[in-house]
Amino acid sequence: MRSWVESAEGSDFPLENLPLGVFRRADGLACVGTAIGDRILDLRAAADAKLLTGEVVGACRESSLNLLMSMGRAAAGALRAWLMDLLSDTGARKRVEPFLVAQADVQMLLPARIRDYTDFYASVYHATNVGRLFRPDNPLLPNYKYVPIGYHGRASSIVVSGTEVRRPCGQTKPADAPEPVFGPSRALDYELEVGFFVGPGNALGTPIPLAEAESHIFGLCLVNDWSARDVQVWEYQPLGPFLAKNFATTISPWVVTLDALRPFRGPAFARPEGDPKPLAYLDAEGDRSRGGFDVTLEVWLRTARMQEPVRVSRGNLRDLYWTLGQMLTHHASNGCNLQPGDLLASGTVSGATEDSLGCLLELTRRGAQPLQLPDGETRRFLEGGDEVILRGYCEREGHARIGFGECRGRLISG
Amino acid sequence: MRSWVESAEGSDFPLENLPLGVFRRADGLACVGTAIGDRILDLRAAADAKLLTGEVVGACRESSLNLLMSMGRAAAGALRAWLMDLLSDTGARKRVEPFLVAQADVQMLLPARIRDYTDFYASVYHATNVGRLFRPDNPLLPNYKYVPIGYHGRASSIVVSGTEVRRPCGQTKPADAPEPVFGPSRALDYELEVGFFVGPGNALGTPIPLAEAESHIFGLCLVNDWSARDVQVWEYQPLGPFLAKNFATTISPWVVTLDALRPFRGPAFARPEGDPKPLAYLDAEGDRSRGGFDVTLEVWLRTARMQEPVRVSRGNLRDLYWTLGQMLTHHASNGCNLQPGDLLASGTVSGATEDSLGCLLELTRRGAQPLQLPDGETRRFLEGGDEVILRGYCEREGHARIGFGECRGRLISG
Repeated sequence: MRSWVESAEGSDFPLENLPLGVFRRADGLACVGTAIGDRILDLRAAADAKLLTGEVVGACRESSLNLLMSMGRAAAGALRAWLMDLLSDTGARKRVEPFLVAQADVQMLLPARIRDYTDFYASVYHATNVGRLFRPDNPLLPNYKYVPIGYHGRASSIVVSGTEVRRPCGQTKPADAPEPVFGPSRALDYELEVGFFVGPGNALGTPIPLAEAESHIFGLCLVNDWSARDVQVWEYQPLGPFLAKNFATTISPWVVTLDALRPFRGPAFARPEGDPKPLAYLDAEGDRSRGGFDVTLEVWLRTARMQEPVRVSRGNLRDLYWTLGQMLTHHASNGCNLQPGDLLASGTVSGATEDSLGCLLELTRRGAQPLQLPDGETRRFLEGGDEVILRGYCEREGHARIGFGECRGRLISG
Repeated sequence: MRSWVESAEGSDFPLENLPLGVFRRADGLACVGTAIGDRILDLRAAADAKLLTGEVVGACRESSLNLLMSMGRAAAGALRAWLMDLLSDTGARKRVEPFLVAQADVQMLLPARIRDYTDFYASVYHATNVGRLFRPDNPLLPNYKYVPIGYHGRASSIVVSGTEVRRPCGQTKPADAPEPVFGPSRALDYELEVGFFVGPGNALGTPIPLAEAESHIFGLCLVNDWSARDVQVWEYQPLGPFLAKNFATTISPWVVTLDALRPFRGPAFARPEGDPKPLAYLDAEGDRSRGGFDVTLEVWLRTARMQEPVRVSRGNLRDLYWTLGQMLTHHASNGCNLQPGDLLASGTVSGATEDSLGCLLELTRRGAQPLQLPDGETRRFLEGGDEVILRGYCEREGHARIGFGECRGRLISG
């Protein structure tokens, strides 16, 4: 099946993707839309014009995806089926085309009102690499293979792709100094992550069994969890990262639904021999065959001197030690209530190989081995004017390639 | 000056207090109100009846305090002056009395829509006591006297006083077991804290100088940061507390404004000789004379077998190593944006003496020295049916005593 939108085929957003997002229309209204090629179908306008019907119409007229997220995957699936029809049926073209706007002409907004944001630490490669830098003799802590480690992030400073990021000030303590100093971070890093939005929530006190976890996941986006490493190492004990992370978190504007990702599911991470089985509440047992997501993830860097960005690394979402479902079920296992639009993120996605490391801390061994860029520049950490671009996409023989678009942010700083 | 509301004098809520909160009216509407004696003045009804005028009227007709908080202390001060007049002028009694409702007849709600919740660790006594239990040779970490340590909590599971709290399940690892187990926490604790609500926020990227910090603080409440200690000790490394804390946080419904607390200000904590000076951005220098708050804080416990609660400890808010202003300024020092209605909390308030320890972990030395209750019962940690009641009040010669009301929660569990 093909869309009559000519730019769809071969783009990140073919008919098979139809990610959802929120954009600011020329009249100033924040509107729900779906991406198709280089266009956006304005779902508010389509709903107003009665092109869409059924229970999702109200949700399409909101200024965020929260209501649609709360309605569950069946509602989102019904909307998806409608959109596929409208955007492939050439007979519908005349009716639908007036509601397409060019992506280039509008500003994307955050897709949801994010009430709570939780960041996990689900890549065992990342956890081991980072652990080795800080605790050479004891890189991976004893809880790692039992507990999907996570912590609460800051929701207020989540920004949409394209927002400039200001280099933060903070306390740092040079190893040879008697006292810490306060000033601009000198070890600013990106982190390549994938986020997932909560669909229907759970009541306080009511856990979510693993078998039901994915019915509470609406869709995925890209996340850059900017990190000030020098601040982090000084502040993080004993309560974890705080100001090193909460100055900005950038997310991509398009939420790729689990329906769109269905052809790209695969087995969960294969635990190495000798690793413990997950405890029962986190053990999918027979159902591990489809716990993973085959999403290629790339980091691109464009320094102020470059015309075009260069690729710095490439990893894959299936390299996570814990599945998204396990993270969600763990989060709610004590009765913590998740709400529609809450964002959970994977933590830095790093793989086993040198070219699949998801942050500069790992790539440069905490700055000890600077990254060599093709134009002769080097980077230990980010410098002013550097733009970091995350990309994600899914490819599989016999299926249309789908993409996540970009998660982009430029560092501005003195 | 006295109120014509007879119950005001001698209660937690005399004319000099006038804390703000939100209650559910008989008609189901969530309404802003102020407490006076055992009554609530319904500010929505008062605004509807044009008893209140000026810029705060709109904020009094909301279903949360967020808008009022965003307007700054001058607006809240103007409202306070109006309310003092209305509730003291016997000539106004006839007009105002119809808008009083009995506290006993209505349900209190959360005072604000809390977007982000941050919990600090500002009592050096608490940090030292807890550190000693986990790291006997190194109780206080090197960053403590420089960094107001804090972490992000969970906003969704903040509940108002009176909400029952369910004992959470979680992963724990008994010291002698080869593997962790999943089940109900067996080391459930309370934490006596004080919270403060953000008034006007700051834009992302714009720090808040210490001299302006208090203009961003709207008022204070009591906080019980329930904690599952056995879950905490297993999960907290390296990213800090997560499921051990986010199953429930109880707050008192009445927000005591900084204006009401003005007579009870005092010097900030006196750093012991030899302690470092705060770094410049956290150093109030000449203005340390009024950085503290003299608020007596009590923990009361009522087990299922008791008729009346017994007092377990009594501390004081002035025992914090960091002032509320320092915590807020530190939080925004990297440009992190705070928003009206955000809740920041002090962390457990413990003092130097045995009877001023703010959680059972400290009082019982992690269960090693059970608490002896007057009826012969003992507690290492909380048991099912236990009710924890936090109280706070301010007393000073020549000033009317004001109170915070209660922060109450009963543990239900198998």
